[in-house]
Amino acid sequence: MNQTFSYKQLFNFTYQVFLKMGCNEEHAILATRVLLSADMRGVDSHGVARLSGYVRLWEAKRINARPNIKIVHETPSTATVDGDAGLGLVVAPFAMQVAIEKAEKAGTGWVAVKNSNHFGIAGYHAMMALEHNMIGIAMTNASAIVAPTFSVERMLGTNPIAVAIPAHDEPPFVADFATTTASNGKLEILQRKNEDAPDGWVQNLNGESTTNANALKEGGALLPLGGDKEHGSHKGYALGSIVDIFSAVLGGASYGPWTPPFPAYVPVPENMPGAGLGHFFGAMRVDAFRPLEEFEEHMDNWIKRFRSAKPAPGYDKVLIPGDVEREMETIRSKDGIPLFDSVVKELNGVGEKMGVGLLSNEADKI
Amino acid sequence: MNQTFSYKQLFNFTYQVFLKMGCNEEHAILATRVLLSADMRGVDSHGVARLSGYVRLWEAKRINARPNIKIVHETPSTATVDGDAGLGLVVAPFAMQVAIEKAEKAGTGWVAVKNSNHFGIAGYHAMMALEHNMIGIAMTNASAIVAPTFSVERMLGTNPIAVAIPAHDEPPFVADFATTTASNGKLEILQRKNEDAPDGWVQNLNGESTTNANALKEGGALLPLGGDKEHGSHKGYALGSIVDIFSAVLGGASYGPWTPPFPAYVPVPENMPGAGLGHFFGAMRVDAFRPLEEFEEHMDNWIKRFRSAKPAPGYDKVLIPGDVEREMETIRSKDGIPLFDSVVKELNGVGEKMGVGLLSNEADKI
Repeated sequence: MNQTFSYKQLFNFTYQVFLKMGCNEEHAILATRVLLSADMRGVDSHGVARLSGYVRLWEAKRINARPNIKIVHETPSTATVDGDAGLGLVVAPFAMQVAIEKAEKAGTGWVAVKNSNHFGIAGYHAMMALEHNMIGIAMTNASAIVAPTFSVERMLGTNPIAVAIPAHDEPPFVADFATTTASNGKLEILQRKNEDAPDGWVQNLNGESTTNANALKEGGALLPLGGDKEHGSHKGYALGSIVDIFSAVLGGASYGPWTPPFPAYVPVPENMPGAGLGHFFGAMRVDAFRPLEEFEEHMDNWIKRFRSAKPAPGYDKVLIPGDVEREMETIRSKDGIPLFDSVVKELNGVGEKMGVGLLSNEADKI
Repeated sequence: MNQTFSYKQLFNFTYQVFLKMGCNEEHAILATRVLLSADMRGVDSHGVARLSGYVRLWEAKRINARPNIKIVHETPSTATVDGDAGLGLVVAPFAMQVAIEKAEKAGTGWVAVKNSNHFGIAGYHAMMALEHNMIGIAMTNASAIVAPTFSVERMLGTNPIAVAIPAHDEPPFVADFATTTASNGKLEILQRKNEDAPDGWVQNLNGESTTNANALKEGGALLPLGGDKEHGSHKGYALGSIVDIFSAVLGGASYGPWTPPFPAYVPVPENMPGAGLGHFFGAMRVDAFRPLEEFEEHMDNWIKRFRSAKPAPGYDKVLIPGDVEREMETIRSKDGIPLFDSVVKELNGVGEKMGVGLLSNEADKI
């Protein structure tokens, strides 16, 4: 069963927790905003449900609540940022802001980040570019749970890519996806329901595709987008690798199987070749390529044309990347954010531990 | 059956054809080099087998053999190039060179191209960055034969992405892939052999996935990487869309279902919203992010670690993007390039029409 909370209730609770971790007010607000943007957009796996995970990383001294985030290398259109082991929720917007400022002067800005932690949903950071009439790009590496094509070893994270593109009358194009067939969050939902996974999502210890939703827990691995070679998994593997290299090898973070895992109970790998995990951000001024009005007019036209593509039988319409999340945001702005009882229980535990009270008490206030 | 030709034989023949089209010597050499790099790398669908298609586009006056390729818009890190309806095989290296020169000064360079034609294999252009110690990126839109998720209409091309990343002792990482489950070239091979296609490659007129390899010819469509929604086709659709927008909406080329088709017998769409088809290129100086030696050391380490990942039972080793094509290049440098009889016959027709003699005559010279 679910309990439903307003944005304000969840914001207040989460913000208090970040303050108790030692974040300054600005960082606590920012981290809360990034985390809750996932809940609002329906990406529940990356929202407040993860708050307890961040707290455990902080308890394990793997997150520095008072980071000195800084640029350590730069050119007119690039920078490398050292996140000082801060919350990725705070480091990422800092780095994206640097990319935007670079783009204002040089046309585009590209920022590699090392020494960071999990940055929430990629889409939030990419979308920061939109209000500047820029295209935004965000990616990150992550805990290694994905096997390359023809391998049984976990070498890559679900390594998401987000791209946000502004339009004029139409809403923006916002793609935000893991480079695996399915995210770990989707697999966990099936585990909870005791249901089978579709073929092509996960493989077992022997590298065989399996419908056992628990295969990952039992030593298997998630599969790259495509599932198997015949269906293009080498492309998903290449995409995940590009995200790993751009996010970590380029800026000096740890990469591949050495990427520090999100669960605090999993020890960090020995002999990490870089600092923390890494991200990569891009901002491109639209008018660095053609006049803004022209671009917006054609982007509107692109979106309208794709929306009016002939739907397959049984479907009403063709969607544009970002439509589903935008619709969810409208609904949750009105109706609030439903949380599983198990998540509320865990958050109550966090609230008690951190001395900010129970989240449940907030529910009564609706 | 096959006939085998040396690189030099195919080069000479192809070069003569481009000269007869009216290309100047520099352009004829460059176009030949790009085209043959596909044959050498084993990407037969994008090599000399396509020469007759380029000639037909030239006959239809859709390719300008003497283009005035120029920059029409720029900032320190960006440019938009007008290809003047030239061969994409010539326009693309020009634009990639601009990206490299921008990167030398600004750290990165990003070039959108309009008014171009089919540019051969994306990997060639991305790999131009390698000798400059840069990461290279190349993408292009293409004839609309791909249906978005939940649609039966052909809206996108196979829209490939190539990313080339330099290492030091190890060979470079070179990913080059269509954003569909399978390329049209692979489907054509099955048609020729009268074999079924795997599920998830193609759908029929009603939007149902089918194993009929002729479904595309019969009004169906190729499927985005992932195949269906359950297997992540909305991610492949998003990727193909990003390539379309970066390659065409950004620089002023035609996009989506209005992208001019490669087969000259297919009329160009009415009311095209842009000029020709479009490409997008990027070059990032590695040392714009961290010292080159550091990057190369870690890139070598990345490649070695992934190569040594535990293979699945039945497999010898885990591959790095680019391995297969590199191995093929070594083999073909030694043994020559095999062409299907049907391709040789078509090339002979081109040779006769253009007055450069028969390709078959070259075979005798081995």
